[in-house]
Amino acid sequence: MRFLCEKKTLVHSISIVQKAVSSKTTLPILKGIHIEVIKDYLKLVATDLEIGIEHTVEVNTYEEGSVVVDARLFSEIIRKLPDAEVEIILKENNQLYIKCENSEFNIICYDPQDFPELPSIEEEYSYEIHQDLFKNMIRQTVFAASQDETRLVLTGALMEIEENTLNMVALDGYRLALRKGKIDASIDNKVILPAKALNEINRILTDEEETIHITLTENHALFIIGNTKLISRLLEGEFISYKQIIPKEYKSKVRVKTKSLLDSIERASLLAREGKNNLVKFMIDDDKMTISSNSELGKVQEEVAIYLEGESIEIAFNSKYFIDALKIIEDEEVYLEFTTNLSPGILKPVTNDYYIYLVLPVRLSAN
Amino acid sequence: MRFLCEKKTLVHSISIVQKAVSSKTTLPILKGIHIEVIKDYLKLVATDLEIGIEHTVEVNTYEEGSVVVDARLFSEIIRKLPDAEVEIILKENNQLYIKCENSEFNIICYDPQDFPELPSIEEEYSYEIHQDLFKNMIRQTVFAASQDETRLVLTGALMEIEENTLNMVALDGYRLALRKGKIDASIDNKVILPAKALNEINRILTDEEETIHITLTENHALFIIGNTKLISRLLEGEFISYKQIIPKEYKSKVRVKTKSLLDSIERASLLAREGKNNLVKFMIDDDKMTISSNSELGKVQEEVAIYLEGESIEIAFNSKYFIDALKIIEDEEVYLEFTTNLSPGILKPVTNDYYIYLVLPVRLSAN
Repeated sequence: MRFLCEKKTLVHSISIVQKAVSSKTTLPILKGIHIEVIKDYLKLVATDLEIGIEHTVEVNTYEEGSVVVDARLFSEIIRKLPDAEVEIILKENNQLYIKCENSEFNIICYDPQDFPELPSIEEEYSYEIHQDLFKNMIRQTVFAASQDETRLVLTGALMEIEENTLNMVALDGYRLALRKGKIDASIDNKVILPAKALNEINRILTDEEETIHITLTENHALFIIGNTKLISRLLEGEFISYKQIIPKEYKSKVRVKTKSLLDSIERASLLAREGKNNLVKFMIDDDKMTISSNSELGKVQEEVAIYLEGESIEIAFNSKYFIDALKIIEDEEVYLEFTTNLSPGILKPVTNDYYIYLVLPVRLSAN
Repeated sequence: MRFLCEKKTLVHSISIVQKAVSSKTTLPILKGIHIEVIKDYLKLVATDLEIGIEHTVEVNTYEEGSVVVDARLFSEIIRKLPDAEVEIILKENNQLYIKCENSEFNIICYDPQDFPELPSIEEEYSYEIHQDLFKNMIRQTVFAASQDETRLVLTGALMEIEENTLNMVALDGYRLALRKGKIDASIDNKVILPAKALNEINRILTDEEETIHITLTENHALFIIGNTKLISRLLEGEFISYKQIIPKEYKSKVRVKTKSLLDSIERASLLAREGKNNLVKFMIDDDKMTISSNSELGKVQEEVAIYLEGESIEIAFNSKYFIDALKIIEDEEVYLEFTTNLSPGILKPVTNDYYIYLVLPVRLSAN
């Protein structure tokens, strides 16, 4: 193996695959990046056996070959090199020679034979979706997935295709986020992706208009984004029938400025945090919503102007769940919908019906 | 106590005193900020008993008074308030009422009687120094102070006045940093300031031309910077006679570009780090300096163009000590001076003699 490549190009390529590198693993080779030169291309691959990322870039090839180099060391060396052309040569005994201007490195590497191959994905079912739409869908749902590994299926997000609509859903037993997006796909389909894989895709995606190609098999999903491929295992199991959870009706509907509501809940939660469950209370009446909280540190009361349709209500929530959602809604105004103070509250943007966020209330004690 | 003050002004004032607040303390009141309104001024004070910071700001006073409020909570609340005027009222039972637009807080506070008073400093010995000069002196020396609490005197920096020159010196047994600055002070003087106090002063100082007023007593130093006062205890004990350590002569003198040398040592240390002592070797000969290092990960060799006066030399160092100093030297070029590979190396800017940095070499093994 011998090739030439600009330092900046290498830095970019390494940064893309590096996130799939195992941070803790009993298999040392998984701390490495498999680099391979074929024809005029350099292919970098990293995997933690859950997800795998492959990135291809054009280089100036003198000799083909492959090796596995420690990801952290390789990344740090390339990053620190001068902004110039880098020459990389594989020498005997898996030693990687790296030269750039007056710097010369010789790095001891792993045998590429020992690196696990990524699963081969056969084109069974696939569709395309715009990068910016898919990025938004991930950003607006995946944060609601559970962190609790004992219910593995909830640590992922459902990607469900129904009548040319992709529904992305994540929930953790306390709140649920649903984002819909129009796509062009003839057949219905349903898979559960690990949150980690979706977060990595979000990182790789640009805000560009280009599409991302998604292929699904029984056990894997393959995402192709330009020169980058990401393969993830699917989560096994049945996702919760989320549609039954979302209330169809309400008794109180509040229209409120997103930013004012977010700021007030954030301030109220400064005192709630020290107490139990980040508890904040909403008192909704007429043209205002009073948000209050108290703990041994003191008490706080916030007033937010609202437009109320329907009944007055008093209801309490874990402020964290509201803050999470209000932070990712881009609309200037949101609707809040409530039925009773024991049934879920709904939060959605005023201008579209693509997004629904549901939160379970906290029961208020008698006093 | 009752006063009005802009949110931004409060945020700024809190951020200045907050760094003196005890992070870990058995005395809960030291987690607080003492706030006091006298005439048209709000005075904020925080202390961890080692250093104390006091900041005064003009406010719109309705009633004088004082209280001690939890620093973290107060800072978070004020920071999150809308960008508007804040009304603060002390109610009964040390409850602090904070109102800003539609937000109202009631915070349970400490009795101001229990807050320790800052030591009163009588003007005994004092001088003035430009803020930007003092900031540079701190930045270029204090990092070299020891972290090792068993030799307390080395965890501080010497501030020595001799013949209208302030010498600031810090050392840790492996390296020494000395920065000289011209000042106007008639009498010689010598004190040792804790590194922490100097770092806090550095943070408070602006790059402005204004001067800082320094007063020294037997046990304390008082720094007055505009509306801010910082009082620090002095470290007791005798500082090492540092002048004897600095070699007056050399056999090899190297002139080299600061940035090239820093970059090369940083790259070389990527491999050194995993080995012993961040060991990097300098081979200085003719018009080039070869920097090399090796460990079980591989090896690296860097070449840097130099201008050598005197003898060739091979000498090894802990790369960290060189990197620390090269990062804070602003000159484009530096001199390195060596005598033997067992005696200290010297690093200094080419354009002035205000700064001297000394590093002990690492003995090279026979092979």
